[in-house]
Amino acid sequence: MGLGPITYHVDVARWQPNAQERIVRAALELFAEQGYENTTVVQIAERAGLTKSTFFRHIPDKRELLFIGQEALTRAFIDAIGSAPHGAGPLEAVAAAVEAAGQVFSPDTKKFAPKRRAIIAADPELQEREALKRASLAAAMTEALKRRGIEEPAASLAAEIGVLALGQAYSRWADPEDRRGFGELARLAMGELTRAAERLAVAR
Amino acid sequence: MGLGPITYHVDVARWQPNAQERIVRAALELFAEQGYENTTVVQIAERAGLTKSTFFRHIPDKRELLFIGQEALTRAFIDAIGSAPHGAGPLEAVAAAVEAAGQVFSPDTKKFAPKRRAIIAADPELQEREALKRASLAAAMTEALKRRGIEEPAASLAAEIGVLALGQAYSRWADPEDRRGFGELARLAMGELTRAAERLAVAR
Repeated sequence: MGLGPITYHVDVARWQPNAQERIVRAALELFAEQGYENTTVVQIAERAGLTKSTFFRHIPDKRELLFIGQEALTRAFIDAIGSAPHGAGPLEAVAAAVEAAGQVFSPDTKKFAPKRRAIIAADPELQEREALKRASLAAAMTEALKRRGIEEPAASLAAEIGVLALGQAYSRWADPEDRRGFGELARLAMGELTRAAERLAVAR
Repeated sequence: MGLGPITYHVDVARWQPNAQERIVRAALELFAEQGYENTTVVQIAERAGLTKSTFFRHIPDKRELLFIGQEALTRAFIDAIGSAPHGAGPLEAVAAAVEAAGQVFSPDTKKFAPKRRAIIAADPELQEREALKRASLAAAMTEALKRRGIEEPAASLAAEIGVLALGQAYSRWADPEDRRGFGELARLAMGELTRAAERLAVAR
């Protein structure tokens, strides 16, 4: 897939086709070669063949690179929930969304994932930013579910289940030892959480 | 192990009994009298009868006052989950925790709540901080539930249901028109979410 991001940045794309994707690729390459800390914004812009000002039009600061998939992820989630079959229940729609997240997680991203998590874990400000990104994703899913006629608080609860499943699937996927694809891990996590919801509701 | 911080607070307490509570009371009084923006840290310290340096030992910055109940809230949650009856299910333990949050929400806090929410809503950095506080609360509840023998992902899911219930109850309680006590609103929100979990699990 990945067509969404390209069409989305139409204005920019006229001047710098795929600037965002080129930035991500350049950044991941440089992080792998010389480490996140030793990589400057200027180096990333150069490697991507962009001016510094074009870079900053896409990425407000270097640390935001750690969350660069967020926009595409949100869009993939909203699209998947919106296009789930008419008769699909809320958790089916959410499962389709979490699986669709696999579009964003490439092999390059996987290679950088352990380092990315360590950087965030060491910095309270980045943890705050990550927490807000997760909350925004939950809010976007909640809205998409409401548009399918799901009422509150079921919409919020289903969205939180989706965010938990995403976190669980990402955590396994980021493990270099784990070779399973993101889609498989997403289905596994959603299945586990759905069964947990059943048991919780029964056991109180 | 951890003896450092304890000794530290004991020393302070010898000189400034209940400093934290006095700061909260003074801050809420001043916010009500002259507004949050017009209130300085020096004024709060004076009203509380503390030196500026004692104030900063308790509260790193004025904005942290917006989250001052967080520590007490987390403790109340952990205690309630830990002391729920042996036979209580995960959601019963979580319900006890959300009800216990009522200990933290005083009438003074309620008066300031709408203003507090407006301040946070207007500031992305404060939203990030709030998102992390919510995530930390969920993590603390998850750990408390695991200590009761609840396994993953049920522990995380039950904790997220608790955080959703807290948010819903707080939102209604912060409304000046709503006269119901926090405990009643907490039970109401937990009931709604438990039924939503049942329906979601059945409907998928």
